Amino acid sequence: MVLMKKLMMKGNEAIAESAIRAGCRLYFAYPITPQSEIAEYMARRLPEVGGVFLQTESEIATVNMVYGAACTGKRVMTSTSSPGFSLMQEGISYIAGAELPCVFVDVVRGGPGLGNIQPSQGDYFQAVKGGGHGDYRLIVLAPSTLQEAVDLTQLAFDLADRYRNPVLILADGMIGQMMEPVELPEMRDLSTLPDHSDWALRGARNREPHRIAAFNIDPVGLEKMNKRLQEKYRLIEASEQRWEEYRVDGAEYLMVGYGTMGRILKSVVDSLREEGIPAGLFRPVTLWPFPKRRLKELAKKVQLIFVVEMSSGQMVEDVQISVEGKVPVHFYGRMGGVVPTPEEILFAFKEVRKWK
Amino acid sequence: MVLMKKLMMKGNEAIAESAIRAGCRLYFAYPITPQSEIAEYMARRLPEVGGVFLQTESEIATVNMVYGAACTGKRVMTSTSSPGFSLMQEGISYIAGAELPCVFVDVVRGGPGLGNIQPSQGDYFQAVKGGGHGDYRLIVLAPSTLQEAVDLTQLAFDLADRYRNPVLILADGMIGQMMEPVELPEMRDLSTLPDHSDWALRGARNREPHRIAAFNIDPVGLEKMNKRLQEKYRLIEASEQRWEEYRVDGAEYLMVGYGTMGRILKSVVDSLREEGIPAGLFRPVTLWPFPKRRLKELAKKVQLIFVVEMSSGQMVEDVQISVEGKVPVHFYGRMGGVVPTPEEILFAFKEVRKWK
Amino acid sequence: MVLMKKLMMKGNEAIAESAIRAGCRLYFAYPITPQSEIAEYMARRLPEVGGVFLQTESEIATVNMVYGAACTGKRVMTSTSSPGFSLMQEGISYIAGAELPCVFVDVVRGGPGLGNIQPSQGDYFQAVKGGGHGDYRLIVLAPSTLQEAVDLTQLAFDLADRYRNPVLILADGMIGQMMEPVELPEMRDLSTLPDHSDWALRGARNREPHRIAAFNIDPVGLEKMNKRLQEKYRLIEASEQRWEEYRVDGAEYLMVGYGTMGRILKSVVDSLREEGIPAGLFRPVTLWPFPKRRLKELAKKVQLIFVVEMSSGQMVEDVQISVEGKVPVHFYGRMGGVVPTPEEILFAFKEVRKWK
Amino acid sequence: MVLMKKLMMKGNEAIAESAIRAGCRLYFAYPITPQSEIAEYMARRLPEVGGVFLQTESEIATVNMVYGAACTGKRVMTSTSSPGFSLMQEGISYIAGAELPCVFVDVVRGGPGLGNIQPSQGDYFQAVKGGGHGDYRLIVLAPSTLQEAVDLTQLAFDLADRYRNPVLILADGMIGQMMEPVELPEMRDLSTLPDHSDWALRGARNREPHRIAAFNIDPVGLEKMNKRLQEKYRLIEASEQRWEEYRVDGAEYLMVGYGTMGRILKSVVDSLREEGIPAGLFRPVTLWPFPKRRLKELAKKVQLIFVVEMSSGQMVEDVQISVEGKVPVHFYGRMGGVVPTPEEILFAFKEVRKWK
Repeated sequence: MVLMKKLMMKGNEAIAESAIRAGCRLYFAYPITPQSEIAEYMARRLPEVGGVFLQTESEIATVNMVYGAACTGKRVMTSTSSPGFSLMQEGISYIAGAELPCVFVDVVRGGPGLGNIQPSQGDYFQAVKGGGHGDYRLIVLAPSTLQEAVDLTQLAFDLADRYRNPVLILADGMIGQMMEPVELPEMRDLSTLPDHSDWALRGARNREPHRIAAFNIDPVGLEKMNKRLQEKYRLIEASEQRWEEYRVDGAEYLMVGYGTMGRILKSVVDSLREEGIPAGLFRPVTLWPFPKRRLKELAKKVQLIFVVEMSSGQMVEDVQISVEGKVPVHFYGRMGGVVPTPEEILFAFKEVRKWK
Repeated sequence: MVLMKKLMMKGNEAIAESAIRAGCRLYFAYPITPQSEIAEYMARRLPEVGGVFLQTESEIATVNMVYGAACTGKRVMTSTSSPGFSLMQEGISYIAGAELPCVFVDVVRGGPGLGNIQPSQGDYFQAVKGGGHGDYRLIVLAPSTLQEAVDLTQLAFDLADRYRNPVLILADGMIGQMMEPVELPEMRDLSTLPDHSDWALRGARNREPHRIAAFNIDPVGLEKMNKRLQEKYRLIEASEQRWEEYRVDGAEYLMVGYGTMGRILKSVVDSLREEGIPAGLFRPVTLWPFPKRRLKELAKKVQLIFVVEMSSGQMVEDVQISVEGKVPVHFYGRMGGVVPTPEEILFAFKEVRKWK
Repeated sequence: MVLMKKLMMKGNEAIAESAIRAGCRLYFAYPITPQSEIAEYMARRLPEVGGVFLQTESEIATVNMVYGAACTGKRVMTSTSSPGFSLMQEGISYIAGAELPCVFVDVVRGGPGLGNIQPSQGDYFQAVKGGGHGDYRLIVLAPSTLQEAVDLTQLAFDLADRYRNPVLILADGMIGQMMEPVELPEMRDLSTLPDHSDWALRGARNREPHRIAAFNIDPVGLEKMNKRLQEKYRLIEASEQRWEEYRVDGAEYLMVGYGTMGRILKSVVDSLREEGIPAGLFRPVTLWPFPKRRLKELAKKVQLIFVVEMSSGQMVEDVQISVEGKVPVHFYGRMGGVVPTPEEILFAFKEVRKWK
Repeated sequence: MVLMKKLMMKGNEAIAESAIRAGCRLYFAYPITPQSEIAEYMARRLPEVGGVFLQTESEIATVNMVYGAACTGKRVMTSTSSPGFSLMQEGISYIAGAELPCVFVDVVRGGPGLGNIQPSQGDYFQAVKGGGHGDYRLIVLAPSTLQEAVDLTQLAFDLADRYRNPVLILADGMIGQMMEPVELPEMRDLSTLPDHSDWALRGARNREPHRIAAFNIDPVGLEKMNKRLQEKYRLIEASEQRWEEYRVDGAEYLMVGYGTMGRILKSVVDSLREEGIPAGLFRPVTLWPFPKRRLKELAKKVQLIFVVEMSSGQMVEDVQISVEGKVPVHFYGRMGGVVPTPEEILFAFKEVRKWK
């Protein structure tokens, strides 16, 4: 297959190709809609570049293969959708505890339970607060366009390697299924990727064996491991908060939304501005670390924050924590795979504005 | 076995016996320290009362057996510890989506990963924010003494039935392993328990079949299901916030902690009061719904809130959301199964008080 | 449910009810056509008599639950069909090696692979020669009528207990699905069943623990275990050969067939006798031990043996071994779930007779 | 790694390297003693030649991966030991029914059950009579030296391809663990291997999809499939019977044994000949098809057949069937991983000879 630099792609495929170009050569997954195209693409494409695609027999198997593969320090990825991601929570806690670099993609579907295959943002808590047990954090990246999905996939592998931490790309079926023109990066030269030979398990010939575990029977030892984790998390919180601001200059009303919702809110802001209502958009790109610092600053300048999610309200808690009661925070959400239209958001916002 | 009304019991056994007295006759589990005594007790005791104990082949099997059993409307329970609870997250999301009554016990151990078997509060996020996917909530109860463990186990089954919602008893190895005298309630008369024959699956003879699912391919239908869930959650938030206050009258400093930590904080408060420092304790008993309403009121009356957790700080976010920036919130935590002593908490608190 | 002594039943149900009347109170299974009625019957009926029905999550789980349950010395059964029985082979080898009493029912379907759900005798080798690894034997009983299915089910439990050996009832969909009037035995008084308290695992209170294993790292020790098994098998071969003879007096032609096929061959024999052709039937009832002794005697008296199976020819090998070349052995078989008609068997037999 | 043509190797490694040189590039397995060196060798060596090694999560997974891989028409192998082979029986029946080429290696250990890891021949029945359900056959090859193991591994892949049938190499821990000098064949040029593009599943671009199944709901259709299988089996029986004869000229006593036992019987024959007792050896190389034709001829020339197996006597049935009572067949066996010495065999034989 010859891939030109810029081309029309489906979101799922764009993420897959970007992963390969980032140097990912190991991919394990169990199929689930609406992201199965990632697995299909990987099945076809990875052998072409000397990589390994493996369809596992369950998500439990998947996450543990990712765990094993990540121990080698090579770039490894899996992708799934909500119920599948739930099944991976135990393994993710182990991987985070063992401080291993790897990339997860969760193309969220309507929930809870089997739900449906429509786009949703109902898994924010699971993704950001840690669905698994123990004090750990995933770095969570939320693209709102296909180009951003491609770019954040590159970033995901780099952050995973830099911090030896699992990174999650949190998308939804809208991102996964739509087609847009994307510019793909060059294929990385694998020899330029982080080496990791100081800790990776690659056969202990002529050296002391390395040991990787998320286990310490001694509380003092386990606390030491946790403190190292927490220091790393503080470093990530200090260094990696990412967001987009749109028309926030002079804004009195601040819309907050991420991913697909952030994209829709741009047109809501445009409509409001056209009507002369000074609105702006704050779109978190990293959901963890949540861009609290900047949001706290912006909170001082606006009269009202209006959070919109495709959920019953989950990220809104991080907004509340960030603004510390300095400005009213209102919420509007749709659930079950319903994507709110700009019109209904406009209507809902104006209702809220009236009350104020 | 003859059980007197009041007797010396181990925490795990007290929870098990209380469950049986609450009418629980179905219990499935896969063993994991530090809660295996619950399973052992159930294995011995359930056959005596005509109940079914089943050791499953994995936690995935367990949660799906709970799902199936809960469909009958009978009182069903499982218990596990952190990694096992992670494995149950997919099933829990299904159960919550299907609105089924059942009781989970998570005796939290040190994490992340395999961690260790010491007491910890590192799974607050998982328990309270929803470890699984989708917009759902567990009612979460956190006992700080064995008597409370017994009483909350009774409450757990009643709330599960009242709201058709899974209820989680969040404990730790300290609660599970310690011995204290407890007063056990009388054995419930099973015929007085909620009937549930209007929805339960018990064989559709001479009636239309019932149908239980957490699935709706249609976004509008799935949103309707979600709206019903959210209405129920709002009702629970309005009706079921529970907490304990201790020496809050005239308090300028408010300690906040739950479970084992709340118990320890009582003696910290006593020590401070002895030194003339006006401290009080706010101990959430329901972690969800978090007792925001009362904490918000108390926040207006104190100068400083001091949250202590056996974690890197998780419940502290709900404290922050509740107090809306009205008073400084400080945090002290230990991790990895280390239980903070009253002395070190006193020391840490006094340091914080100095800065202020 | 009130069950009269004699009534019209489906074969699968008759086997199930007979098992219960034989004292079976433990039954585990995973559903597979054409024997799922056994599981359905057990699910409904066992609770009525204080028994335990459990649908497992796979045949692997089933056979290991049977293994565990059989360790208690209580009467335990499972049932399955061909592919399911293949999945149980590892466990069966363990159970046979550990010398545990239990009863398997295999309602054979067309094979190999998924095959189809029609009646077949294609699993004779698997059943009789040992589908699993190692030198072990199942006692194999092959009913040809529903009444015999009922009676052999009683015998199966008794032989299993007497020899501490798994017993297999080998049937087919014809036996399982047809309806015939059967006379059921009285319900056994459980207190009269073999006690087994000298070896069973029932909690080692006030005695040395028992130990059950099919494992011995030492070759001499393992050979000793094998010798004990082989001695038992020789005893069974000496004591338990069972068969039916039909019109063998003066027979020059001996038909041999088991199960459903034996039943059909009776009418073939009748037709031949009507035509003045002196034919008789030898119908093995125990497939292991194969009734060699009697067949060898009969072989001396006839000119030709005609074996008919619903397979490509498997039992025919045991016939050959029994007759030691003393008389020609011819074979006719149908496969894939095709049940030969009396007419085609007559035709085939006459062709063979011509050649001779 | 550079591998010279002739070199000292362990049996398990020799089989592995021979498989690779035969063109095997796909190998899946779950570890079990005494053959884990095959997997270890494959794990190291397959990537060097562009092949895929995969350690599966169970033998059930293994056999189904072999099934899937064999559908591509590429050369695929797995290896295991007795309990693992039992777990594969369902899948083997499917593979045989679907007529797919692939190679199994079973390095038999002491049984039944977990048994031990010593050499044994207790799985002859399972291997030869079909451990799984339905009328199917494996081609079974039994090497007695390492060089023969190397050569039969080559043959195994060729027969598998020629007949589209699974082939089993039945060895034991003696063969697997001993070291001998072996001459390895050249690496096959993959482009010269059978193409199989007329039936293999490789993506149905620009052609009608192929379909592979061991399933036919219609008895007539399933019988047709079975007839095709049986015709193939008759062809194999006619063409592929293989054996070794040793000093049979003028022999009055015929020893029969396969694999490791055949090797030991050679020195028994030599000892007898030295004593002037005219003994010879018949060593089946193909266990299925059993070399009946030649054994039947030889039976006419000898006074006594003496079968020795490392089992309670399994192959002896095929000897009996072959000789049709024309000469007495005696048996001597050891079990549980005990390998009989030449001395004890001599002694046992002479005892038998006396009786005669």
